[in-house]
Amino acid sequence: MGEYQHILSKTDGATVTITMNRAQRRNSLSAEHLTELLAAFEHAASGEATGIVLGGAGPVFSAGHDFADVASRDTAGVRALLRLCTELMRTMESVPQVVVARVHGLATAAGCQLVASCDLAVAAESAGFALPGGKGGWFCHTPAVPVARSVGRKRLMELALTGDTIDATTALDWGLVNRVVPDAGLDEAVADLLARATRGSRASKALGKQALYAQLDRPEADAYAIAVETMTAAAQLPGAKEGMAAFLEKRPPEWPD
Amino acid sequence: MGEYQHILSKTDGATVTITMNRAQRRNSLSAEHLTELLAAFEHAASGEATGIVLGGAGPVFSAGHDFADVASRDTAGVRALLRLCTELMRTMESVPQVVVARVHGLATAAGCQLVASCDLAVAAESAGFALPGGKGGWFCHTPAVPVARSVGRKRLMELALTGDTIDATTALDWGLVNRVVPDAGLDEAVADLLARATRGSRASKALGKQALYAQLDRPEADAYAIAVETMTAAAQLPGAKEGMAAFLEKRPPEWPD
Amino acid sequence: MGEYQHILSKTDGATVTITMNRAQRRNSLSAEHLTELLAAFEHAASGEATGIVLGGAGPVFSAGHDFADVASRDTAGVRALLRLCTELMRTMESVPQVVVARVHGLATAAGCQLVASCDLAVAAESAGFALPGGKGGWFCHTPAVPVARSVGRKRLMELALTGDTIDATTALDWGLVNRVVPDAGLDEAVADLLARATRGSRASKALGKQALYAQLDRPEADAYAIAVETMTAAAQLPGAKEGMAAFLEKRPPEWPD
Repeated sequence: MGEYQHILSKTDGATVTITMNRAQRRNSLSAEHLTELLAAFEHAASGEATGIVLGGAGPVFSAGHDFADVASRDTAGVRALLRLCTELMRTMESVPQVVVARVHGLATAAGCQLVASCDLAVAAESAGFALPGGKGGWFCHTPAVPVARSVGRKRLMELALTGDTIDATTALDWGLVNRVVPDAGLDEAVADLLARATRGSRASKALGKQALYAQLDRPEADAYAIAVETMTAAAQLPGAKEGMAAFLEKRPPEWPD
Repeated sequence: MGEYQHILSKTDGATVTITMNRAQRRNSLSAEHLTELLAAFEHAASGEATGIVLGGAGPVFSAGHDFADVASRDTAGVRALLRLCTELMRTMESVPQVVVARVHGLATAAGCQLVASCDLAVAAESAGFALPGGKGGWFCHTPAVPVARSVGRKRLMELALTGDTIDATTALDWGLVNRVVPDAGLDEAVADLLARATRGSRASKALGKQALYAQLDRPEADAYAIAVETMTAAAQLPGAKEGMAAFLEKRPPEWPD
Repeated sequence: MGEYQHILSKTDGATVTITMNRAQRRNSLSAEHLTELLAAFEHAASGEATGIVLGGAGPVFSAGHDFADVASRDTAGVRALLRLCTELMRTMESVPQVVVARVHGLATAAGCQLVASCDLAVAAESAGFALPGGKGGWFCHTPAVPVARSVGRKRLMELALTGDTIDATTALDWGLVNRVVPDAGLDEAVADLLARATRGSRASKALGKQALYAQLDRPEADAYAIAVETMTAAAQLPGAKEGMAAFLEKRPPEWPD
């Protein structure tokens, strides 16, 4: 993967670690950067990994869109950029791997959207989260989509309208991240949560993750229709059969996939 | 109700208490067990009770589906089982009574789904909650439907992907239960919350509960359309007329239903 | 605005303060009161203000519908009243200004709905919140619509079914309000939050607020479709262009609108 200019992607065992590596630009999300992130997630999705960690190099996690890239675009150009960004976010939700955000510093605008779009998130105590468009001139329309689905409405409004930064503890209290740890313990906490989240049958978990996103935001009857059909199909997967057999035979399971 | 083999159902005043009574199987939800629970809820729904308490005998609240029942089923058989389970959960939401979970121990998989599907839940300090399919081979697809509608997205993902158990205090913090009390105070706390939740006009409350579930998960305009029409109809109920008259005449109401 | 009988409306700089002024009726929401509130919000919406504060005179914020007005209405009359009330709530969400509730006392039934329908809310420590229809005869059907979209499901059920009052600290914990402050500090806290929430380009923020409400409660793919198109259009607003130019030129922005 030496072809990447803006990111690092490293495979270690069953984990792919993707690192935004534009520290001098606060890991802002130019079209080229987004394209590489999308390629890295798609590449990981097609491989054997069970988990993906998304982090950033330098003092900032990600500052969101790169105004130097946005300012010169016409309407069609902005739309294309936002569609590319949305494709990345939706791909992070649809890949079969568990995706964990490793948030060591500020995550703002589309950077905060990245955190909200990961399945799970671990923050260092010095991390911060904001939708700063609210105090500027453009507004964080698309970042607010997954953030609204993680925090309550009044808290979304506060983030989106004030643009103020919340600290990691507040983000934990509001449900935007799963863990807050001292900065020095960040990698260990990410590895621990990822290990817990990638136990069991890989194929069953991939189907499970995708069904979760499919049923969210829908009326409960529709959500149940999706879940019942998926769970019916899932019961015939080798992993499900092995899991139930091992349980009934009181032996450890050997996951076939 | 001597016909039940797997549950106990007892009526005491205006409260029906349904107790899962397969302690030796951790109150797991075989088809026969689900069928009896469904029958008990439907029977209670047709009676005069204002509240239903759902609890479990033995050390565990409920361990969810019974793998001994699932493992031998083909696709059609699994689908039928999951549809039966879903029918129970949806019936708990649609009965005119207020339904309170009395959670004294572990509530896992479809057992956790039972808690999420009750209108209200009271947990003993030693209770625990998990979607353990996430560390196994099948995945808790259908349990995640009501759990996702009680807790935030990141917390759902943590429960569903890790399979780890959260304690009662965490469940309270995340909004999965309404009260946590010392184990010895569980029955008293359930009775207190149920008494509060069953005050007022029975018919008005039944309509109210059903309208709540109808408007949830919908775009706000659709939710308002449902709520306005229901509340318009509700204003003509005897209970509403008596409530308003008593208020205006500064006297205690006498509920007609 | 000397024509109002039930409310006060005052403009101070960029802020319109609307005060319910039926203290002797606990600021209950008769048709005439609702009509004046709606007119005041519509008038403010058409003006240059960036923020609106909604408060109440006397010891109570608002006790909700006026039973003296409801009790004599037939079905068509109740429907008309609830549609008027819903129009007010939806107008509060759709006006281009940031709307902050200033909650100094009890906010019950449709009074609690007013708080939930404001973009942001600041509560004094002595404030309280309830959906008391649950212990009466009518039920808080429409108030539950925005409350359900601010707090979790189990908490909604507790409020709606028990009718009990929660205090301001609980409301903060549940996400129904954004700030709780000592009673003496209420005006200062409202002004501070409103100032933070009205920074930046007025036109961009108005579009932003409206897009937030449009994307909420929808499946994520639909929400992204709305947000991408709105954000694409927003990038061509003078405010967005000035904000990006100022950032890139490292100078303070001068908002054109």
